[in-house]
Amino acid sequence: MYKAIITVRLKPSVLDPQGSAVKGSLHSLGYSAVQDVRVGKTMEVWLEATDSQEAEAQVDAMCRKLLANPVIEDYEFHLEKGA
Amino acid sequence: MYKAIITVRLKPSVLDPQGSAVKGSLHSLGYSAVQDVRVGKTMEVWLEATDSQEAEAQVDAMCRKLLANPVIEDYEFHLEKGA
Repeated sequence: MYKAIITVRLKPSVLDPQGSAVKGSLHSLGYSAVQDVRVGKTMEVWLEATDSQEAEAQVDAMCRKLLANPVIEDYEFHLEKGA
Repeated sequence: MYKAIITVRLKPSVLDPQGSAVKGSLHSLGYSAVQDVRVGKTMEVWLEATDSQEAEAQVDAMCRKLLANPVIEDYEFHLEKGA
């Protein structure tokens, strides 16, 4: 069993209205030191695979096909064994 | 300037319907090796602070007050300087 920890973020050039809203809320709460906020997703995927190469290939394909939108998002992941 | 990278996840005991939906979609796409999926949020917050202790205290307070719901979510973060 492998556990993949995947992070999906908007590309730096893409506007992030959710991040802007969070930044506005933090300012309203008095955290005026906050300069910028960007919001993304993290996913933990547990999967069976015979070895880490197979697990990595599967997770990369899942990211490209479903978990991230490659037009506007970047993704990265790392694997943990036996988690 | 410090950059805080914050991860907010549902507590393990809390049901994750979004994760279940993603798992179902992955199975539909043929990824039957997937055993479980949990979905969380990641946030990058850039803030001004005089030192890392102050930055850490500010980010921890932001997490408790706004960014995470401590009833159902756990959070963790780390700081990068000058990012």
